[in-house]
Amino acid sequence: MSAEARALDAEQDLAKPGASTLPVGLLGHGTVGAAVARMLADRGEAIAGLTGRRPELAGVLTRSRGSFEEILRRSEIVIELIGGIEPARGYVLAALRAGRHVVTANKQLICEHGEELFAAARENGAQLRFEAAVAGVVPVVRVLTESLAGIEIRRIHGIVNGTTNFILSAMEAGADYEHALTQAQEKGFAEADPEADVSGADAAAKMAILARLAFGTPVRLADVRYEGIEHLISDDLQYARELGLGLKLIGTAERLAGGVSVRVHPAFLYGHHPLASIGGPFNAVTVEADSITEITMSGPGAGGPQTASAVLGDLLSVISAAGSPGPPVAAPVALPLLEDTDSAFYLHMEVADEPGVLVAVAGVLDRWGASVKSVLQRGLGENARLVMVTHPLSESRLRSAVGEIGELPFVRSPPRAIRVIEEEFE
Amino acid sequence: MSAEARALDAEQDLAKPGASTLPVGLLGHGTVGAAVARMLADRGEAIAGLTGRRPELAGVLTRSRGSFEEILRRSEIVIELIGGIEPARGYVLAALRAGRHVVTANKQLICEHGEELFAAARENGAQLRFEAAVAGVVPVVRVLTESLAGIEIRRIHGIVNGTTNFILSAMEAGADYEHALTQAQEKGFAEADPEADVSGADAAAKMAILARLAFGTPVRLADVRYEGIEHLISDDLQYARELGLGLKLIGTAERLAGGVSVRVHPAFLYGHHPLASIGGPFNAVTVEADSITEITMSGPGAGGPQTASAVLGDLLSVISAAGSPGPPVAAPVALPLLEDTDSAFYLHMEVADEPGVLVAVAGVLDRWGASVKSVLQRGLGENARLVMVTHPLSESRLRSAVGEIGELPFVRSPPRAIRVIEEEFE
Repeated sequence: MSAEARALDAEQDLAKPGASTLPVGLLGHGTVGAAVARMLADRGEAIAGLTGRRPELAGVLTRSRGSFEEILRRSEIVIELIGGIEPARGYVLAALRAGRHVVTANKQLICEHGEELFAAARENGAQLRFEAAVAGVVPVVRVLTESLAGIEIRRIHGIVNGTTNFILSAMEAGADYEHALTQAQEKGFAEADPEADVSGADAAAKMAILARLAFGTPVRLADVRYEGIEHLISDDLQYARELGLGLKLIGTAERLAGGVSVRVHPAFLYGHHPLASIGGPFNAVTVEADSITEITMSGPGAGGPQTASAVLGDLLSVISAAGSPGPPVAAPVALPLLEDTDSAFYLHMEVADEPGVLVAVAGVLDRWGASVKSVLQRGLGENARLVMVTHPLSESRLRSAVGEIGELPFVRSPPRAIRVIEEEFE
Repeated sequence: MSAEARALDAEQDLAKPGASTLPVGLLGHGTVGAAVARMLADRGEAIAGLTGRRPELAGVLTRSRGSFEEILRRSEIVIELIGGIEPARGYVLAALRAGRHVVTANKQLICEHGEELFAAARENGAQLRFEAAVAGVVPVVRVLTESLAGIEIRRIHGIVNGTTNFILSAMEAGADYEHALTQAQEKGFAEADPEADVSGADAAAKMAILARLAFGTPVRLADVRYEGIEHLISDDLQYARELGLGLKLIGTAERLAGGVSVRVHPAFLYGHHPLASIGGPFNAVTVEADSITEITMSGPGAGGPQTASAVLGDLLSVISAAGSPGPPVAAPVALPLLEDTDSAFYLHMEVADEPGVLVAVAGVLDRWGASVKSVLQRGLGENARLVMVTHPLSESRLRSAVGEIGELPFVRSPPRAIRVIEEEFE
């Protein structure tokens, strides 16, 4: 504990309430902050019965009132729900350096400044918990840092953005992208400015955090390749359904020969994949490892009471692990981040309905090492729609093949290519 | 810490290896025990890197070799994988009373003697963890005792027996019960004596544990009403499918007005229920509460490496929470266990194909307060098959109605009644 921490503690002793109460400082009082404050009041008695400590608000910091220094002095635990980088980063660092345990729901902060915060927690014997930063109340952070921390994880697939999952569910039901987005906004599942969600950036930050926890290598948003859902059309979903596929925005973090790949993109799933049945605004994460086969967790990824429940779970764990540093986050290791990974692909082309087309397209694919798994061709007057699913090949080879196919004389518009996730275990 | 604990500790100081090793005693060396021993060797380095302590086997107790007292003296943590009540109970109690942390996979022990063990852990400042006792590596124990310990849980539905889920999946694919059971035995998913699994007793013990964790009330196997799958016929699955239903062996633990209900029985699920897509030998648990809506976790419920992974996760948590008592199990509260609960029902009858039959059957149901949600009638020569799904009513009223229907002159065989689980949230 630093000199600063000891000084703050000495001050706090004067103000410390009875031994059974646990002073909690709350930074931020938006939807989640207000829900946390309500739950602390409602569930304080139950938590006291369970842990011997009754959490009580020692102060609330909002935009217009409260002093961080005052709240820090009075609190044993600080809950950060401001969001964004500053001033949240400064507050969380100051709290950890003062030996205070911190619970946060701030994905951006953990993604961009995780190493600094993990180190500050370690050096000051403070716990830093952030379940609510990824997939809301779905307990993926806890499972990665505790249940599965001892085994070697191979891969994580996640639906970690509820907005895009809601929009894709609506598109699967027949809506086009614009209408589906409007629906999501009307129901409160999308912001007025949906950019961070529909671009895949929000999901990318969450996958960066999960990759750090699973593989130990620091990953920031800028390290994640991500694509959004803005360019998908309802047709993609309708034709794919005929091939037994559903479309989701999937985050992937996987250990491969030579490094780690972290990426987010729309992807088709076969109907028996554990993420295929996750509809609407829900989140879900599948973790694969040799020793566990796979486990899947799903639930609401957002919402005031849901996110507040995740914060409350972390708070309870902080209390019951008091005196220990809590679940350790491994010291960082540097692993190469791979960009060109293998995947099966769905291809969708409009072609002239004439002899030799299928042979020519299959010939290009074959030259680039793409073998075809299934084909669906349908006449449309003088044109035809050709839908194919390939076996896995590298993205760069697939892009080259798609470029060549686009230049064939009978191809009416550039082929659309979307990844397909194949289950390897059965 | 007791005098006995201090005496054992004094002895252990002499034998204690270097500060960085963590001596672990292993009781039992069957499939799971051998997998745990292997994982400790394989993953020791990684765990040391994460926690600063390298777990090392201090001794292994098998049927034919090893001394429990010797192993206890040498260990800081005891892993119990013997199974059954004695001698496991005596060993676990002795270890806790000696201040040793215990990790166990023993569902029977936790179900029947949980209170005694929880109290012994509390009184001696020892951690008792048992993730592997319920649903293998699916992290339901951790989620109930930590993530969700602060909120009020309303209901748990679980597929917590992989043997029966495998058999039902095979029956859904067309096999009859005997063939499906043989298939399960051939694939290693069922024991030579499958009684404990197919009768529902195994699932009942697991639901008793989950009910204790969720609601605080002690529940033993004898308190759980359970039915197995031995009397199901393939026809039940085929007709139900036409009504959009799938059949699972479902454990339920729920808080109701006046108490708690804990039960296990075959039940039909609608296709969108989160447990409907769980096939083969997998386990899955859904937890519902007002503040979280619901979360679902699924994964392999058995298997050597899978169960060993759950044990390893507990071991890691014991290490990283050393110095604290770990996640608290609430002091027990006595809540009434309710027997007669409401449910929707599927009814399957063979009746004479003559006028007035449907009216007569519907009339009996109406008198007992059962309203009909859907009907499927199909002629079979001079007989007809009548399949109905009711809205929820109490089991006692449904049984009375079924008794009366069985006595109607045109009913060819006693009606078959199976519960249907309706989702209340959307």
